[in-house]
Amino acid sequence: MDAVGLITEYNPFHNGHQYHLRIAQQLTNAQVVVAVMSGNFTQRGEPAILDKWTRAKLALENGVDLVVELPVFDAVQPGQRFATGALRLLNDLKVKQVVFGAEHPEWNFKKLGSFEKKFRHDDFTDYRETFATQFNEALVEKTGISLTDPNDILAYSYFKACQEHDWAINLIPIKRQGKGYHDQTLGLYLASASGIRTAIKTGRSIKNVVPKVTAQALAKLTIIPSWQVLYPILRNHLIQSPVGELQNIYQMTEGLEYRLKEAAQRELDFQSFLHAAKTKRYTFARLLRLCLYTTLEITTEQMTNNQPYHHVLAFNDRGREYLHQVKKQLQYPLITKVDAEMKDHLLALDYRAGKLYQNFTAVEQDVKHAPLIDLSSKKH
Amino acid sequence: MDAVGLITEYNPFHNGHQYHLRIAQQLTNAQVVVAVMSGNFTQRGEPAILDKWTRAKLALENGVDLVVELPVFDAVQPGQRFATGALRLLNDLKVKQVVFGAEHPEWNFKKLGSFEKKFRHDDFTDYRETFATQFNEALVEKTGISLTDPNDILAYSYFKACQEHDWAINLIPIKRQGKGYHDQTLGLYLASASGIRTAIKTGRSIKNVVPKVTAQALAKLTIIPSWQVLYPILRNHLIQSPVGELQNIYQMTEGLEYRLKEAAQRELDFQSFLHAAKTKRYTFARLLRLCLYTTLEITTEQMTNNQPYHHVLAFNDRGREYLHQVKKQLQYPLITKVDAEMKDHLLALDYRAGKLYQNFTAVEQDVKHAPLIDLSSKKH
Repeated sequence: MDAVGLITEYNPFHNGHQYHLRIAQQLTNAQVVVAVMSGNFTQRGEPAILDKWTRAKLALENGVDLVVELPVFDAVQPGQRFATGALRLLNDLKVKQVVFGAEHPEWNFKKLGSFEKKFRHDDFTDYRETFATQFNEALVEKTGISLTDPNDILAYSYFKACQEHDWAINLIPIKRQGKGYHDQTLGLYLASASGIRTAIKTGRSIKNVVPKVTAQALAKLTIIPSWQVLYPILRNHLIQSPVGELQNIYQMTEGLEYRLKEAAQRELDFQSFLHAAKTKRYTFARLLRLCLYTTLEITTEQMTNNQPYHHVLAFNDRGREYLHQVKKQLQYPLITKVDAEMKDHLLALDYRAGKLYQNFTAVEQDVKHAPLIDLSSKKH
Repeated sequence: MDAVGLITEYNPFHNGHQYHLRIAQQLTNAQVVVAVMSGNFTQRGEPAILDKWTRAKLALENGVDLVVELPVFDAVQPGQRFATGALRLLNDLKVKQVVFGAEHPEWNFKKLGSFEKKFRHDDFTDYRETFATQFNEALVEKTGISLTDPNDILAYSYFKACQEHDWAINLIPIKRQGKGYHDQTLGLYLASASGIRTAIKTGRSIKNVVPKVTAQALAKLTIIPSWQVLYPILRNHLIQSPVGELQNIYQMTEGLEYRLKEAAQRELDFQSFLHAAKTKRYTFARLLRLCLYTTLEITTEQMTNNQPYHHVLAFNDRGREYLHQVKKQLQYPLITKVDAEMKDHLLALDYRAGKLYQNFTAVEQDVKHAPLIDLSSKKH
């Protein structure tokens, strides 16, 4: 059996994801669809709108055969580490082809890598702007290409990761359909995940742009996960912890600990806090991720040299058969049930993130939680 | 002008407090009533039902002339440190008489001190019970006196503090009126503060047992301060912080860090957490205080050798005149307005406690908050 890999957040699973999945199957003729999916917190550092088990279930119900969690130490990271972490798992799972959307699939992403390598060391000197902005300015000047659309940037990261690690994965960018990532309007059948989340928060109907099962899962939400709900926790730690301790938080650099502490002392709601903390130097995503690291009290040490693993969230018969086919060749541990020992060691960060996510749902997110199994699916 | 001192929590100010105040004036013929009052958290480690400014205002409206805050490092402590901290401030304020309720004002509290001194070193060996329980068992055996009622215990602490520090304060225990401390029923005109808080939480009317101004202040509450509201903050820190760090928390002794971490991982509401953490060895008050130290991330170092000060919350003309009379003789700083420098140093712990209290009220609790002044009161 051959597998096609998808790198996903499914936040939440919508019609565009369904389209992506079908195209991936058609383009590759793969018998199995393997999705690596962010857990309870997304790459941008925000709580996912549905917990990872619900999102894995929706993925299964919509045609994914095997869902593996991208651990929080790789999921909540800048694009490059996110991309590398996801491809590392897919490569270990013997997935040979990965299909992903891009705004400009026709670009030669491979070629841009060598340019950045040179740039990184020489030119990141203007501290008033983000690295991404400065890199892109140089790129436009040199190549005429503007790497600004989020899925183009991610596509570029996938190519770079495979180059750096010599992974023999066939990377297949496809044209992203429908609305852009940042587009907040809902199309007739397609909308961005971000647009869908905004619609949910403002009470607009999303039933045309998501599968029925997604709409049903969203209708059951009693509380919409957001930073606003977690802000009292973040705020308190920023206020109570001495700056000397806050400096140990992963990515708490360049005096951000003073800036965040002051903003926390002053601001009573999360949006005001975020805008008080923002400068040109940091993107909102960078700050949101830092908010999560701070709330989870993750130190630099805890975030480096993590042991990768495959935490299986869901599979059907095809997924199970595929796992059986590859499991003896896996380099990383395959985890189907988290025990008390894992929660304190191998999976400690995911476990801690899951406990934070319990502010939205009483459901235990890791310990003794068996993978979701759909036995109704028949073999090809 | 002579002052009578009261050591108070006013949580909230009720008819029994009014009675206590009038008796104190009658017994002492003092011209001024000075109250040392807990701030936003009480001696038992719980958030006060009204913030300290509202409670100071109610005290002023009910006959107190000067309200000084007992700093959190002395307020949220076992009875002995609470008593010592309060009397230290009153002694520095040249208050010569202190009147307080006791269940058995006729006892010779002074005499019991020497007995405890002996007991403390020799007999605290049974680790299955609290020190208080063991001390009292020995006391009953030796003297026939059972020091079990909360106000008797506190009365005893006042005498002990004055003995140990050679403070020339006339301590006047009076018979506690009405309901006992733990009594949850409401009398016709009198009820315990604890009974009143329970009544508020369960929606019963308290208007017969509190002054009208207290009822009005309570009616304005949009959220009733409780540990249940703060539990997500406490829970998250217990989960995210390594046990090695939790050990630095003040009073986190004898492996309590493991016990609390496990209870936090398991329990989603505060009452379940508290009962999971409880053993015979620790009283609920001890655990509640530890919950506060943990949420405020207070280390042992931060809780020892604190510089005392007088943070003035409210006064009227008589209170102002009295302050004027004594201020040149004060050993400790007199603070009427907290500035940015104080919030990070002298008043850091009160400031941090106030920020935590902002989960109940948006009102800034310290910085730039001037004392409440009632100019309507005329001199005697």
